[in-house]
Amino acid sequence: MAEVVDVLPVAGIKLASVAAGIKKNGGDDLVVLTLDENSNCAATFTQNAFCAAPVTLSKKHLSQQAPRALLINSGNANAGTGETGMRNAEQSCVWLAETLHCQAEQVLPFSTGVIGEQLPMAVMQSGIDQIASRLSADNWQAAASGIMTTDTVAKAVSKTLIYDGKKITISGIAKGSGMICPNMATMLAFIATDADVDATFLQQCLSEAIEDSFNAITVDGDTSTNDACVLIATGKAGNKQIDHNSPDIHTFIDELNAVCLHLAQAIVRDAEGATKFVTVSVAQAQSKVEARNVAYTIAHSPLVKTALFASDPNWGRILAAVGRAGIEQLDITGVNIFLGDVCIVRNGGIDAAYSEEKGQAVMDKHEITIAVELNRGDESTTIWTADLSHEYVRINSEYRS
Amino acid sequence: MAEVVDVLPVAGIKLASVAAGIKKNGGDDLVVLTLDENSNCAATFTQNAFCAAPVTLSKKHLSQQAPRALLINSGNANAGTGETGMRNAEQSCVWLAETLHCQAEQVLPFSTGVIGEQLPMAVMQSGIDQIASRLSADNWQAAASGIMTTDTVAKAVSKTLIYDGKKITISGIAKGSGMICPNMATMLAFIATDADVDATFLQQCLSEAIEDSFNAITVDGDTSTNDACVLIATGKAGNKQIDHNSPDIHTFIDELNAVCLHLAQAIVRDAEGATKFVTVSVAQAQSKVEARNVAYTIAHSPLVKTALFASDPNWGRILAAVGRAGIEQLDITGVNIFLGDVCIVRNGGIDAAYSEEKGQAVMDKHEITIAVELNRGDESTTIWTADLSHEYVRINSEYRS
Repeated sequence: MAEVVDVLPVAGIKLASVAAGIKKNGGDDLVVLTLDENSNCAATFTQNAFCAAPVTLSKKHLSQQAPRALLINSGNANAGTGETGMRNAEQSCVWLAETLHCQAEQVLPFSTGVIGEQLPMAVMQSGIDQIASRLSADNWQAAASGIMTTDTVAKAVSKTLIYDGKKITISGIAKGSGMICPNMATMLAFIATDADVDATFLQQCLSEAIEDSFNAITVDGDTSTNDACVLIATGKAGNKQIDHNSPDIHTFIDELNAVCLHLAQAIVRDAEGATKFVTVSVAQAQSKVEARNVAYTIAHSPLVKTALFASDPNWGRILAAVGRAGIEQLDITGVNIFLGDVCIVRNGGIDAAYSEEKGQAVMDKHEITIAVELNRGDESTTIWTADLSHEYVRINSEYRS
Repeated sequence: MAEVVDVLPVAGIKLASVAAGIKKNGGDDLVVLTLDENSNCAATFTQNAFCAAPVTLSKKHLSQQAPRALLINSGNANAGTGETGMRNAEQSCVWLAETLHCQAEQVLPFSTGVIGEQLPMAVMQSGIDQIASRLSADNWQAAASGIMTTDTVAKAVSKTLIYDGKKITISGIAKGSGMICPNMATMLAFIATDADVDATFLQQCLSEAIEDSFNAITVDGDTSTNDACVLIATGKAGNKQIDHNSPDIHTFIDELNAVCLHLAQAIVRDAEGATKFVTVSVAQAQSKVEARNVAYTIAHSPLVKTALFASDPNWGRILAAVGRAGIEQLDITGVNIFLGDVCIVRNGGIDAAYSEEKGQAVMDKHEITIAVELNRGDESTTIWTADLSHEYVRINSEYRS
């Protein structure tokens, strides 16, 4: 019914991207996305207590006005910057509002990059001055590049569907490669659809979509100060407005979920230094929380991650991670662990049919699945992560130099 | 009152170490420690649900008989090895008991090394046959070497004190370098004193001593399947038996705590690939648990650890870790963060007097303290950790090859 295509324009959305001079590498670092009037907008933000100034300000603006523009800079997170950082975020919104002839409260600011440095305001101002004249419906790919930091590839996707007889497009971009462990929020991701969607229902759709996509990935367990995900519905497709009582809403929700999952997995595929794409599934848990705890304990284990990097079927490290995941009264004689389609642990011990050769064959692949059966209940979860390589250490020990 | 000295013999304890052939590098890999009759013995073990066969068997034997010998092998953890692993642990105890003329239930087995491989039993048997004739009171240093795996230095310490007019010695050895995040237990550590100490009180002393030593260190957040700590009191010093009502018991407890802290910090100093020794202190927390959560979130953050490796005062990563530590309703405007004696964050923002040069001067040192004040209460904690280096990745991606 739906198909993956190159990133498509969304009626009611224009974008622009410029190299203002914030990033040291000279790449694009300032992006503006404008929304037509009457668009609805949903958003989720990081739960990190030290959230960045732009996160605080975006939340405030969202509560005051319907947004008309997003202002996104890369290369500087404007986090841990105190009152000066907040004033700088406010001033940036004022400048963009002047060029777009809207109110400052209608601009949502987003920042990503180094924490603890003040925004270079002269550079921000000259960038904002240039950017308004460059707005175009066809700039999604450029915007995807403009929000990158340590990302090595731009992340963008579109899906289309027919709803109420109208063709509907959902397009999204995201950035993220390190400091990835979203907590009830995401890395920067901006998604728009031309569907007409009720505002309350739009927020509900977004909150549910991120739960098994952006909130189900981890690179290094470090939740960013700047995570944000925005979903815009411009209503230009002409469909009858979608709300929670609409017929066939799963056709819209399924494609929205697919966009979120594609972008979330794209972040893991581009994880800093990653050489493996790893799926961790935990089944037969007593609760979803229990399943998640086991999955994240495996996914965050430096020993599991370095074994994955080495393509080493050192499954004892997976077993040790399950054992320390804090499950109350775990009966290990009920636990099974699989590496790809190879059973490594059956009823708590090495499977009789396991051989190092079988484990090695799975580990040699680029995409690896680790599956755990706890034999305690009916809840399950799936998350995605990457390995821990020399390159991760190099990138993160040289990031500011 | 007490002094650190080379590792000293403890009356009532003999040790031996041989290269049985379990380790691939040909080093010593089998250690026996014997206790004279009437010794008291306390122990703590890993809380990992997948605890190793020797952990399960040691707990069982401790509940049945007063131990006369510890049998420790390195190079193989005998974990995740199912019923065969348990039979092998039992058989090893039987063999040692035969050579020592005691009962198998009086032998406590310990194993450390690769998880998921069966013990090489022919090698174990021939090693055990050789070892009994080599027992000597002066073999503490050799035993410290014999229990090493990825450790690069042997870890041993002695302290002496005068109690009840008698000279008392406490000697201990430990191993550990990776898979270090003890949870209510420790890596392998064996401590003995010639003091006469009541058995119940001995267990209480050990449980309290490990709380702020072995249980306050982390290398990689991975709790081992084989952690164990044993404290033996042989009673040969001739002092009036120490129990919880004894006068001046702090003189004994202080030195026991010092031995545990020395060995725990020695593990962090020898952490796999470590180039820094890092102290993380959290003060003004509402509870000890809250302080610990913040400290461990900092200590486990791959981004903080790689910044430490790079000697990069990238303090935003510390701030982000504090922010995601899960503190309920944290008022960030009350938070101060120090790097050494340099205030980096005051009242939630960059300290006005902070400069990159000041931060760099602290980061360039080998020993670094990160201190956080939460301004929420009176509880505090201190833990110790290491950085995350290229060498950690190399060691853990090549460990089995």
